Amino acid sequence: MDLRLKLKHEGGVPLYRQVYEQLASRIRSGELGPGERLPATRELAGLLGLNRATISTAYELLEADHLISGQVGRGSFVRAVGEATEAGFTWEQREGQDARPAARAGGPAGQAEISFAVSRPSRDLFPLDDFRASCAAVLARQDLADILQLGCPGGYEPLRRVLLEQARREHLASAADDLLITNGCQQALDLIGRVLVRPGDTVAVEDPVYPGLHNLLTGIGARLAAIPMGPDGLDLAVLERVLRAAGGAKPRLLVVTSNFQNPTGATLPLAARRAVLEIARTAGVPVVENDAYGELRYSGEPLPALKQLDESGGTVLLRSFSKISFPGLRVGWALGPKALIDRLRQAKEAADLHTDQLSQAVLLEFMESGRLDSHRARVLRAGAERLAATLEGCRRHMPAGTRFTHPEGGMNVWLRLPEPMNTAELLPRARKEGVGYLPGSYFTIARPDPGALRLSFASLTPEQIGRGLELLGRVASAEEERAAAEFEPASAMV
Amino acid sequence: MDLRLKLKHEGGVPLYRQVYEQLASRIRSGELGPGERLPATRELAGLLGLNRATISTAYELLEADHLISGQVGRGSFVRAVGEATEAGFTWEQREGQDARPAARAGGPAGQAEISFAVSRPSRDLFPLDDFRASCAAVLARQDLADILQLGCPGGYEPLRRVLLEQARREHLASAADDLLITNGCQQALDLIGRVLVRPGDTVAVEDPVYPGLHNLLTGIGARLAAIPMGPDGLDLAVLERVLRAAGGAKPRLLVVTSNFQNPTGATLPLAARRAVLEIARTAGVPVVENDAYGELRYSGEPLPALKQLDESGGTVLLRSFSKISFPGLRVGWALGPKALIDRLRQAKEAADLHTDQLSQAVLLEFMESGRLDSHRARVLRAGAERLAATLEGCRRHMPAGTRFTHPEGGMNVWLRLPEPMNTAELLPRARKEGVGYLPGSYFTIARPDPGALRLSFASLTPEQIGRGLELLGRVASAEEERAAAEFEPASAMV
Repeated sequence: MDLRLKLKHEGGVPLYRQVYEQLASRIRSGELGPGERLPATRELAGLLGLNRATISTAYELLEADHLISGQVGRGSFVRAVGEATEAGFTWEQREGQDARPAARAGGPAGQAEISFAVSRPSRDLFPLDDFRASCAAVLARQDLADILQLGCPGGYEPLRRVLLEQARREHLASAADDLLITNGCQQALDLIGRVLVRPGDTVAVEDPVYPGLHNLLTGIGARLAAIPMGPDGLDLAVLERVLRAAGGAKPRLLVVTSNFQNPTGATLPLAARRAVLEIARTAGVPVVENDAYGELRYSGEPLPALKQLDESGGTVLLRSFSKISFPGLRVGWALGPKALIDRLRQAKEAADLHTDQLSQAVLLEFMESGRLDSHRARVLRAGAERLAATLEGCRRHMPAGTRFTHPEGGMNVWLRLPEPMNTAELLPRARKEGVGYLPGSYFTIARPDPGALRLSFASLTPEQIGRGLELLGRVASAEEERAAAEFEPASAMV
Repeated sequence: MDLRLKLKHEGGVPLYRQVYEQLASRIRSGELGPGERLPATRELAGLLGLNRATISTAYELLEADHLISGQVGRGSFVRAVGEATEAGFTWEQREGQDARPAARAGGPAGQAEISFAVSRPSRDLFPLDDFRASCAAVLARQDLADILQLGCPGGYEPLRRVLLEQARREHLASAADDLLITNGCQQALDLIGRVLVRPGDTVAVEDPVYPGLHNLLTGIGARLAAIPMGPDGLDLAVLERVLRAAGGAKPRLLVVTSNFQNPTGATLPLAARRAVLEIARTAGVPVVENDAYGELRYSGEPLPALKQLDESGGTVLLRSFSKISFPGLRVGWALGPKALIDRLRQAKEAADLHTDQLSQAVLLEFMESGRLDSHRARVLRAGAERLAATLEGCRRHMPAGTRFTHPEGGMNVWLRLPEPMNTAELLPRARKEGVGYLPGSYFTIARPDPGALRLSFASLTPEQIGRGLELLGRVASAEEERAAAEFEPASAMV
């Protein structure tokens, strides 16, 4: 294995990230094949003339991407293809989820890692009997054969109609709007990218943002204009400057999360919603409102969607059943102006003809039978407890000077450890203690945020959350003391 | 409504097609909105200075695309969005499928149209009880919650593994191959297009070919190099010339249907398979083997897949459950070299994270329980009868000089009426008599074939097929006599 990587010691890209990206690229291209053993961190550090912690961090990121896996006493190996997902989920992890996260090579012997790494619903809250009852109702229907026959690109019409009527009742949809069923919000974003974005075009996105969006846009050759996120969402001054750009730098569209953004948890306040719309309208930039998390509000008053506030008709709203019910069933939708939805429908037809009809019919039944409402109530109760445990754990266990967002819903809290801590470098130590997370560098676009990390709390119990944050706080505090101790001599030189 | 179309009387594009395309484009762009009434054919013909039959044909094609619908005594109206599919299927048609095709405005009063227009399985053969039993088995499983949870981009691992093992047993897959689950063959083609084709690239395709592939490739900006189809598949001399082209004209890939091609029904003989592979290998062009219909062989010996014959590793094979079971469940797969599958998996993840897991689990159960085998046996028996009825009907009822393909499987027969008949112009008359089809012009790329039409027989009973071809034969013969009579005076002038 030839691991002579090309590293730049200047240029602002951290060395661990360069090592991570170059190894990831070689694994993805097949240059490093499944089962190949990577050199020990000490060995590779020596080879490249780098600190061992740098290599450990790179390996941790590769492991977070499920490109390699560590095996106790044996080292790190390139994984077999087909095991990785954007959401950081592997087949092997299925054995012990949520309540029983899989034991990891890095954790203390006999202890399962408490992982804050994945933003997905809790498996132990799935209402299996209600799901079975919904399936049974669909299977008993007279028109079952129609569900199994080839369908329409717009979606299973009974579901499409119910969602559109609901959107009209909620004043989200006007007579000029239409609705397209997609395979979750991800496909809606993808179709919008295909229809509206050409290679070299600029798209304005939140920074940080979840990698699924980042990868999708760069995959179609888009350039990203990063709008920094604060606790209240987009930085409006930067947004205005970016959207006003001329020529090729002018964004073709703005993708914005109105509620409980992934990864920051931030929600746009009402005044900011109006401001975003006004800025976008003045600049003539269409708005994609990505609202996968909107229904997961645990406290506070719901805010009107951008789509509802927008009188110019320049907004398309994306929603999904994935976060509120079963993400293994891929059903979401795009609601927007007819002419756009019509183009998206053509792209959808070219992409995969139509969304799976069995799942559409089952989710419609789940919704219309009232079972979705019952499930939502349970999910909101559990979510409120888990969010409260997360915020409480952050307050109790994190070192002084730690800051974190205070979302009123969703699945994620964004936490920033005091400087000069680096969460990517801290991750190997945290996992050794039995707690995992995704470092901020995994989400940032243009603005490095080395002290940040994402805590995805929705699939952990309050007990796990408390214990996990206690462990994380201990690791962070130890790191702070170590850094302070290292700094001592220099300080003494003053 | 401003219908001043820009028509070119020279240039080889038939006028009906120009009218059709320009109206289709205005409907798709929203310029002509849902519910708008198109002028009567007589009126528009007068406005444009064209023959009324030309406008009727254009309207028929718009109706075949479900962009407009005719209402008895009222005229033709632009359809509401969300009603059209590539496969020529609308929601409204669901009421009476297969055994009871919907009555159409154009047909004789009280009689249902017999439609050969749609290439899809027969709804009346769906084994609903077996499907219910497969669902019940999945719903009873201990790992149901895993199926409902977020999955892997590669596919539901138990299904992926079974399909890959099966492919290995059948010597389709080598150790260097991998398999990706997709939303049917259409998504596999789309992902391949995204990964391998850039705007302006050339792709070699069969001519004629089904519009789903044509639209997908032109949608991503590809130029199509058309390889004429004969009764035995691709014209190998043209293929060789096209694949040897240099520069931008050199195809990035060749998409070829090995079995029962849509629309011609043609199957590549063994020698031609070897020749295609040799030509592609010499030219260095990867081969996409699109094999949605391969399992539907009613007679004759199965031939080895291109993928199996290809020792160079340059072929990717696409298959699907859609044609052999339930097209409303969108599950297919791509089998090919690991490095390519790896890139496709990344594109899949960006496109929609992963394929719906409920349907993957149900189809796996349907397969492993043996129910798919039973269903396949029934479908093959019915298909053999339907194909025989189609060939017999063509022999008995079509005018002398009519030629048609003699496939040993699949869902389609390609028929060519004697010159100078034009099946697009004939269609309004055929539908008036109660029989529908898609004219050859719907499928052709570079080589006009005005006398051709596609007969999709799989969803009609032998009785319907016999009656439909009797009607079609009568219309064609009448047209032939009319054309001969019109020709008389000129003939007398000699």
